[in-house]
Amino acid sequence: MTPAPQTPQTLDLRQAIAIGNPKAIDLWLDVVEDPRLRSEQLGELDPGELLRLGDLMPVGVAAEVTDTLALHVAVDLVRTVAAARGGELLAALESDRAAEILRELDADERERLLTAMPAEHAVVLRDLLTWPPESAAAHMVPDVLTVGRSVTAAEAIAQVRDHRAKLRQDAHIGAYVFAVDPEGRLEGVVSFRDLVLADADTAVADLLEPDVVSIGPLTDQEEAARTVVAHRLLAVPVVDDDGRLLGILTSDDASDIAEVEATEDAERQGGSQPLEVPYLRASPLLLWRKRIVWLLVLFLAAAYTGTVMQAFEDELEAVVVLAFFIPLLIGTGGNTGTQITTTLIRAMSTDNVRLRDVGRVLRKEMATGLLVALAMALAGIVRAWTLGVGGPVMLTVAVALVAIVLWSSLISSVIPLLLKKLRADPAVVSGPMISTIVDGTGLIIYFTTAKLLLPELAGL
Amino acid sequence: MTPAPQTPQTLDLRQAIAIGNPKAIDLWLDVVEDPRLRSEQLGELDPGELLRLGDLMPVGVAAEVTDTLALHVAVDLVRTVAAARGGELLAALESDRAAEILRELDADERERLLTAMPAEHAVVLRDLLTWPPESAAAHMVPDVLTVGRSVTAAEAIAQVRDHRAKLRQDAHIGAYVFAVDPEGRLEGVVSFRDLVLADADTAVADLLEPDVVSIGPLTDQEEAARTVVAHRLLAVPVVDDDGRLLGILTSDDASDIAEVEATEDAERQGGSQPLEVPYLRASPLLLWRKRIVWLLVLFLAAAYTGTVMQAFEDELEAVVVLAFFIPLLIGTGGNTGTQITTTLIRAMSTDNVRLRDVGRVLRKEMATGLLVALAMALAGIVRAWTLGVGGPVMLTVAVALVAIVLWSSLISSVIPLLLKKLRADPAVVSGPMISTIVDGTGLIIYFTTAKLLLPELAGL
Repeated sequence: MTPAPQTPQTLDLRQAIAIGNPKAIDLWLDVVEDPRLRSEQLGELDPGELLRLGDLMPVGVAAEVTDTLALHVAVDLVRTVAAARGGELLAALESDRAAEILRELDADERERLLTAMPAEHAVVLRDLLTWPPESAAAHMVPDVLTVGRSVTAAEAIAQVRDHRAKLRQDAHIGAYVFAVDPEGRLEGVVSFRDLVLADADTAVADLLEPDVVSIGPLTDQEEAARTVVAHRLLAVPVVDDDGRLLGILTSDDASDIAEVEATEDAERQGGSQPLEVPYLRASPLLLWRKRIVWLLVLFLAAAYTGTVMQAFEDELEAVVVLAFFIPLLIGTGGNTGTQITTTLIRAMSTDNVRLRDVGRVLRKEMATGLLVALAMALAGIVRAWTLGVGGPVMLTVAVALVAIVLWSSLISSVIPLLLKKLRADPAVVSGPMISTIVDGTGLIIYFTTAKLLLPELAGL
Repeated sequence: MTPAPQTPQTLDLRQAIAIGNPKAIDLWLDVVEDPRLRSEQLGELDPGELLRLGDLMPVGVAAEVTDTLALHVAVDLVRTVAAARGGELLAALESDRAAEILRELDADERERLLTAMPAEHAVVLRDLLTWPPESAAAHMVPDVLTVGRSVTAAEAIAQVRDHRAKLRQDAHIGAYVFAVDPEGRLEGVVSFRDLVLADADTAVADLLEPDVVSIGPLTDQEEAARTVVAHRLLAVPVVDDDGRLLGILTSDDASDIAEVEATEDAERQGGSQPLEVPYLRASPLLLWRKRIVWLLVLFLAAAYTGTVMQAFEDELEAVVVLAFFIPLLIGTGGNTGTQITTTLIRAMSTDNVRLRDVGRVLRKEMATGLLVALAMALAGIVRAWTLGVGGPVMLTVAVALVAIVLWSSLISSVIPLLLKKLRADPAVVSGPMISTIVDGTGLIIYFTTAKLLLPELAGL
């Protein structure tokens, strides 16, 4: 790589580190503004370069950069720099972000960093780390702007000003001011803007919105994120059973949670277990482990297609052209089912379909299935005609297609709803799973239809 | 349904409308706070009830409710109430939300409502409606807090106070104040909080952050939403080619866009065209139309499996047990491919995999494919043994499994990357499409392997 200082817009991080002057890093930050590009370039550094980068950036700058880095890159950075530097860096981050990074480290590394940072920060982080990782509380910011309801707007602003030194540069946190009683119980919320634009001597009590949307600390992170989005909030307060304000979940964290959950759902739908790390960081061995379980389960389930075929061996030998249509028939059944489950599961995970809609879903899918079945039967007749297999086989293919499409529509609609009813995650019903189920049952439907309709199989 | 006024927590909207007193609606709003439940209950009303509801709610309340309703419910409400009422309601909404609703109406309804509202609002909305629906500008809020850079903090706050009457209750909009020159060109941004907490006579110029992340009006909505999330912003300014500030895209709209795009991707991945309406609103005829196109395309593509089988008819008649393994082999190929495409496409749509990563992706997937192939070959040998088909067929199955898994891994990794390279949306590569491609090619691999390994097929 040849350094090209005459064209600074192409300065990359590796060059900047090689120059070894903090000003080069500063220049790089100016030139590369997109957090995604920054994550990418940081992600490609070797440990030695990361270590030097940690020394070259003032801690405030490092914290600002780390805030928007991809999580795994931030983790690498914090893990690689000297413990004292890492502790400083974590203490300069917002607590929820710092906790998120610490969760990714092993116990030893975590302890080393917590010990290296100021005690008052370590206490807050240790507390956050006690919540289950999938809970809303694990992602909350405990630094909240609070005031008593009896103060005036001007006094409240003065309190916010005092509190400000403790707050990082984050407009999400500063957007709302929460009123609490002396025991810390949430009494209402006022937007910072309303507080400022009100007359100075208005009582906070008069500005308060007492009906606050809130969540419990153990609320599932996905549900919590959906609450923030549905109410179009910048942050939602996390409140314990006694009504005490523990912290807030901000909308940027809610967006992150929603993205992670959508990725996990997509991976499940494709028939693997969620990777839990970014794709490019996953080793072939990890990919293999996440994929092979379902592949083997499906292979085992699909093995009965062999048994079915064996059971109909005589029919197959008598009319070998029946075999021509096997991939087409079971493929169509699987495709029909996959269309239904993916649409339905996405609608369920975005709260557009609930359990009580089961009747509507089934009626809708069976009506659609009938329309699809008729169209596919027509297509099947045309295909059988072009293969020149004769009338009875043509009829068999058409009837089997209708039955397979209807059967596939039924089980693809029922299974996700049933899983939801059993409080399991419907997203585990992958396309491959539906295809596998339909493959074997579709063969039974096909050969049974053939036995009923083909005169040469009547005696078998 | 029996009214149960003694237990107000069960009050539903239909009852409240039947009571016919605005206080009943008020009570309902108190009792049913979740926007998702509100959308659900509103969605079940018939047009007569919607009309009465429109009359019972003060327009300010109606606007507040409409703001968080599911879009299709908001559209129904606005479409059903009298034009004058609908115009008032739209004028009371934020412009981006009002434009979003108007886009869903046909030209006549839209014109009727625009004519019924105050002219200055209609102008703003007509302007928003001229942008392409997939562009960032179509979703922007044109009401932005702006100040000149030469004023002091106190003067800026006074300007914000004056501007306030024009602003709806939305903390997203109020979070940032933008400095513009006399031609409206963006010069920098200051958070509202910093403005307030600064000394009154500090110049805005000293508080400004001049390096503002911004987007163009024609930026694709998905890319724009990803910019807001990546930078953890509350809003991003939309700026034209001359640097003039046109409006802002707020983080709640970015969340909505991300959700809609994720739903469309999921539906495409499942092998249908995106529904574009909520699932429960889709008629069987619409579902059929969105699904049948791909089903027929895939049927046509899968038809060649019949041709392949016909070509190998002699082999099949000679060793009919070969047919037993057809569903299992092609199913495994399809499953392997579906796992890869879904993971890869999700990684690409979240910017975790880019075009330049093609080498890494291929190496990773071929290495994983080899591990998967060996495991599946073992499983295939066990299954062939349990079916008692003899050594040569057992070997054929094992070798064919290895070849099919590797082949499936290769095309499932290459096709999405190739589509991206061609600037097409990789999300059109659905699980069903991959299965169909692998079905036919897998059969060719299987029968060719059989011809090479089975002595009884040597002469054919």
